[in-house]
Amino acid sequence: MTSAPNQAQSLDETEIPQMMRAVLKAEAAPGLTKVDDYLVPDLGPGEVLVKVRAASICGTDLHIYRWDDWAASRINPPVIIGHEITGDVVRVSPNVQRVKVGDFVSLESHIICNICEYCRTGRGHICENTKIIGVDRDGGFAEYIAVPAQNAWVNSPDMPDSISVLMENFGNSVHTALAQDLAGKYVLLTGAGPVGCMAIAVAKAAGARAVFATDISDYRLNLATTMGADRVFNPLNDDVVGGIMEATNGDGVDVLLEMSGAPSAINQGFTVLKADGHVALLGLTARPINFDLNNNIVFKAATVKGIAGRKLWATWYKMQNLLESGQVDLTPMVTHEFTLDQYDEAFETFESGTSGKVMLRP
Amino acid sequence: MTSAPNQAQSLDETEIPQMMRAVLKAEAAPGLTKVDDYLVPDLGPGEVLVKVRAASICGTDLHIYRWDDWAASRINPPVIIGHEITGDVVRVSPNVQRVKVGDFVSLESHIICNICEYCRTGRGHICENTKIIGVDRDGGFAEYIAVPAQNAWVNSPDMPDSISVLMENFGNSVHTALAQDLAGKYVLLTGAGPVGCMAIAVAKAAGARAVFATDISDYRLNLATTMGADRVFNPLNDDVVGGIMEATNGDGVDVLLEMSGAPSAINQGFTVLKADGHVALLGLTARPINFDLNNNIVFKAATVKGIAGRKLWATWYKMQNLLESGQVDLTPMVTHEFTLDQYDEAFETFESGTSGKVMLRP
Amino acid sequence: MTSAPNQAQSLDETEIPQMMRAVLKAEAAPGLTKVDDYLVPDLGPGEVLVKVRAASICGTDLHIYRWDDWAASRINPPVIIGHEITGDVVRVSPNVQRVKVGDFVSLESHIICNICEYCRTGRGHICENTKIIGVDRDGGFAEYIAVPAQNAWVNSPDMPDSISVLMENFGNSVHTALAQDLAGKYVLLTGAGPVGCMAIAVAKAAGARAVFATDISDYRLNLATTMGADRVFNPLNDDVVGGIMEATNGDGVDVLLEMSGAPSAINQGFTVLKADGHVALLGLTARPINFDLNNNIVFKAATVKGIAGRKLWATWYKMQNLLESGQVDLTPMVTHEFTLDQYDEAFETFESGTSGKVMLRP
Amino acid sequence: MTSAPNQAQSLDETEIPQMMRAVLKAEAAPGLTKVDDYLVPDLGPGEVLVKVRAASICGTDLHIYRWDDWAASRINPPVIIGHEITGDVVRVSPNVQRVKVGDFVSLESHIICNICEYCRTGRGHICENTKIIGVDRDGGFAEYIAVPAQNAWVNSPDMPDSISVLMENFGNSVHTALAQDLAGKYVLLTGAGPVGCMAIAVAKAAGARAVFATDISDYRLNLATTMGADRVFNPLNDDVVGGIMEATNGDGVDVLLEMSGAPSAINQGFTVLKADGHVALLGLTARPINFDLNNNIVFKAATVKGIAGRKLWATWYKMQNLLESGQVDLTPMVTHEFTLDQYDEAFETFESGTSGKVMLRP
Repeated sequence: MTSAPNQAQSLDETEIPQMMRAVLKAEAAPGLTKVDDYLVPDLGPGEVLVKVRAASICGTDLHIYRWDDWAASRINPPVIIGHEITGDVVRVSPNVQRVKVGDFVSLESHIICNICEYCRTGRGHICENTKIIGVDRDGGFAEYIAVPAQNAWVNSPDMPDSISVLMENFGNSVHTALAQDLAGKYVLLTGAGPVGCMAIAVAKAAGARAVFATDISDYRLNLATTMGADRVFNPLNDDVVGGIMEATNGDGVDVLLEMSGAPSAINQGFTVLKADGHVALLGLTARPINFDLNNNIVFKAATVKGIAGRKLWATWYKMQNLLESGQVDLTPMVTHEFTLDQYDEAFETFESGTSGKVMLRP
Repeated sequence: MTSAPNQAQSLDETEIPQMMRAVLKAEAAPGLTKVDDYLVPDLGPGEVLVKVRAASICGTDLHIYRWDDWAASRINPPVIIGHEITGDVVRVSPNVQRVKVGDFVSLESHIICNICEYCRTGRGHICENTKIIGVDRDGGFAEYIAVPAQNAWVNSPDMPDSISVLMENFGNSVHTALAQDLAGKYVLLTGAGPVGCMAIAVAKAAGARAVFATDISDYRLNLATTMGADRVFNPLNDDVVGGIMEATNGDGVDVLLEMSGAPSAINQGFTVLKADGHVALLGLTARPINFDLNNNIVFKAATVKGIAGRKLWATWYKMQNLLESGQVDLTPMVTHEFTLDQYDEAFETFESGTSGKVMLRP
Repeated sequence: MTSAPNQAQSLDETEIPQMMRAVLKAEAAPGLTKVDDYLVPDLGPGEVLVKVRAASICGTDLHIYRWDDWAASRINPPVIIGHEITGDVVRVSPNVQRVKVGDFVSLESHIICNICEYCRTGRGHICENTKIIGVDRDGGFAEYIAVPAQNAWVNSPDMPDSISVLMENFGNSVHTALAQDLAGKYVLLTGAGPVGCMAIAVAKAAGARAVFATDISDYRLNLATTMGADRVFNPLNDDVVGGIMEATNGDGVDVLLEMSGAPSAINQGFTVLKADGHVALLGLTARPINFDLNNNIVFKAATVKGIAGRKLWATWYKMQNLLESGQVDLTPMVTHEFTLDQYDEAFETFESGTSGKVMLRP
Repeated sequence: MTSAPNQAQSLDETEIPQMMRAVLKAEAAPGLTKVDDYLVPDLGPGEVLVKVRAASICGTDLHIYRWDDWAASRINPPVIIGHEITGDVVRVSPNVQRVKVGDFVSLESHIICNICEYCRTGRGHICENTKIIGVDRDGGFAEYIAVPAQNAWVNSPDMPDSISVLMENFGNSVHTALAQDLAGKYVLLTGAGPVGCMAIAVAKAAGARAVFATDISDYRLNLATTMGADRVFNPLNDDVVGGIMEATNGDGVDVLLEMSGAPSAINQGFTVLKADGHVALLGLTARPINFDLNNNIVFKAATVKGIAGRKLWATWYKMQNLLESGQVDLTPMVTHEFTLDQYDEAFETFESGTSGKVMLRP
């Protein structure tokens, strides 16, 4: 039998095994464990079964891998981790309408309740009962995953899976960048990790006059440049504030996209922000920081927005539009690919700071 | 001749003296000095001369009175202080069109340049060359004051001058309260000083479902209640967070109007803010504070706006509308009135914490 | 057995009959037919069964009653009509979570698909697959109705059912009135039918400086005044344009809420609209009209919004807030109440133009 | 002395003559008259004298040239026409600060009063006392023109005057295109005259996913393509509605920029507009049109904005940003250049429909 790689249309139910390989946080300690005999999950009402093609590593996964305080307080082992996932739908529950067997999908990682006030008013991204795939329930470092049909975003069969695997993460970039109007504006991005680098491409596509980026990793700044940054600054070597003020004729930037969580970067960003400027905060600080509300916000008449996840599913439609039209090209973002067996090597690569996105294939 | 108190239509130029009484910050030290032989100011191009009926004391005046670090770094004595001013126009420069001799006016305290980008785009409230009356040039604790015609807001002759004297300050209240939609929403005001108390009345007029207020002064909380607060909390005695969560059925508030500058109040305010809530920051903190960006802004997807002054002159039109229609009644706000000679007593009263606005009449 | 009128908590399944009374559009002709032997509907997946307490008559029902061109083109008899419905949930499908047996509910009349782009982006009010209760499927002029659980809005048990029956209709009023900021603004409502009269109360609650209303029925203008209109105008007798210009000191109104669909009213409304004014269009015209885009929209730099239904369910939350807080009181709106048997009399009353809302009780 | 062509820094006052050449609407009849003995205008308070380098022809000028009903009702001959003007400042009134002798400027054509409510709230583009250069007072088809300093926008000396002459007109394009968010959206432009063609470039720069354009002139559609249109349609030959629906996968467009004033184009534009779509109306219809408010606006929940002129001066800053950054290139727009003597030939060329902008040099 020859089959097109992106299609599973005529999937034979008997091809779905009962057991699968998976990478677990098996116990409350650093590291992960790979097993071969995990049960392929049953479907709850409204769920679909996805045969995973690829899953990429996120900073959250690294916290769980290392088993830091946050992880210890949040994760109940054993659980399969991984929440940036792409694959093919191979089984659907009765009454599922929108998603069909054979659909090539990316997964939204937030499972929302649909019944709280936020969900019922188009703001599911701040659902008060959110469960996260790969954190609160089994994730995608496995051969199969069961998720609510609602969480499956159907891609064009033509999309490469090295792009589709990025969708969840790209959603953060799009939500942050498009939280304010950018047309003809100067934009500063602080923190050029993967989400930041993708946000640069979005900001350029959305009409930013110029995008500046700061990071302490030159590797990342190179990737930022590849993704469209007009100028990059490494605060370890460069005068960030002076450089940006000079690049903007002394005016400063109209928009700050904060993705570092680093107090010094936050401070620099607000310093170069113009009066009446807009700030989108996605980065998380390690702890509360010393913050100058007067000069950063009040006197500047700044507008500061917190960014939670992605809008469900307004952001996904925007992502699709930007990718389909070719306005944003994410090709440079996946720099490394490993098999599921190589998970330790994959995490080391991601941790090194000299990678873009790192992808695992089951 | 008998004349209506609010009119100076047929003003005889010869009635304007050459010398006037004024209260000065005469030297770089605490206190003020009253003199009788200050020159009635000449008019620059586009300026008007206003015979002061009343001027009220603002927190800024108190800083100057006490001569604290901020005052010492900002004020160049000698200067007449006072920037909340109402009076009658008695002389106008050639080419002044909108304002006429006899107009009964309130004064905007920010003198803007009209030529910077902010001024030329309807955002004069963040003009980069702002000069402040009573700080950067002579103010209103005097018999006469010269100001750009642009800064004179023409009131109805029927408005009591105990209301018109409040306009500048009321502008802060209106700008802060109307920085976000309030219809049907729960609003928390932290810091029930005069600006806060007036903002309560604005929030109620603008359709707030309920307004809660916090302050450490019971006097102020009483005034807050008079101005329309539905429930008030004194953090010295009350469980603010618990009380507000209970009053909102566990949901928290939709909007926070922060006017205290106090870290504990700011913290309480953000704690009870709903997800997707809106915050308007007017209060100034004494110094940078320890602030939890993650929980206060990012995870909540909050929108936080800094509030600078009043919009010039969009806020003034809104003020006029709210007062003319009777939607807001500021009558309870002026609790004390003194003559210019009694300036020390006036400042003591204002400093006591058991006053609303304190007004001086020359 | 004595039971509290608003509760059905311990409902005994055996109490639900197999047959019920209902008022049908039985055939493609004017009039309606009452039958006693209609099957109590079975529940589809995710549906709930509601025992109807009351249903009110809407203009749409009148079109169906009269069997005009629109009705003939849209309705497939036999169908039970009526879509403004309140009652008690007496049976729920498996897996329904939010709604419970015993809940006292109002029904949203638009059944949406949840899977189109609009539904998935918080804009279900413009779902491209909308089905309407009482039009596309059986409605509420009956003893029981089955609807998707999603369409049941749970009220406080304390709400009178003469208020809860209005919720669907009130949603149009709230959606229209709150489509723009109203604080401190002059508002003109053209077309003071029930939706218009309720919108007046909303506009006043949301801070309108004054609300003017026009209608050709003095009965309705009286109701408009009861609901809070500051001035009313009957174009048959009054100079609408002149009167409104005079009432606004020659400025005109900031906001137009158009609910008449009458070309002359639309024209008057746009004529008195200020430059940069906002218009919310809910009224439907009988056919395309002669319209001056230049003077009505372009030169005025007006913003005109079409209003479709109610936001699902953002508008419902706002409705609840405005009613619970007492900011809006709909008590005067239901002026007539009939039994289901009296449906002809009820329609005649509604058609007479001398009624507010007319309510039927099974 | 050799001097750079764009500078007049050390201008010798004696070089300014007393008489100048100018093209007049000399009497109430078709055509224009050129004279050599027009007085170089004196400066009023706050005005500057500009030595005209170039002025381009606008549709309004053509109305005046032909002397149609509108022109006859609006213009009081004799008056110099022309309102799209660029040149060098050669004289300034006392107290003028922002503009200096030697500045290379483009002129805003709307002279606003600065004292009406609109002017004082950052909405001078709808000033109720607007006077238009070349309509209400002498314009720029002349060697010199006097204008309020406020109306002179200072360009970089490096800007070609074939670009700077377009600024006023380009402002309409920018104001219209940026009246709504365009990032990732489908945009339809109806009416690809010069303003439309420039708006295409703006929409692309602001992140439109694709821009479609319609016009009945193939010459203009070619220019539209040059300026960035992704697909163009000539309704004389093409199925506009079908073509656009097909190009958008049956969804229609998110945004309509209406610049034709043609009823058929307006109708087509609204027909292909998605629900919740946005419309910016700049085109003027010859007379009121038959318009379907129900289907065009109400059922679609569309937002329609009238566009008046350019924002003063927010739009000018955006224009500058888009041009300086190279995001928009207007080079292809000026297709013809004539001397002032050739005014008849210039108007014929402009009238032919086979030109972009037509420019006159004194």
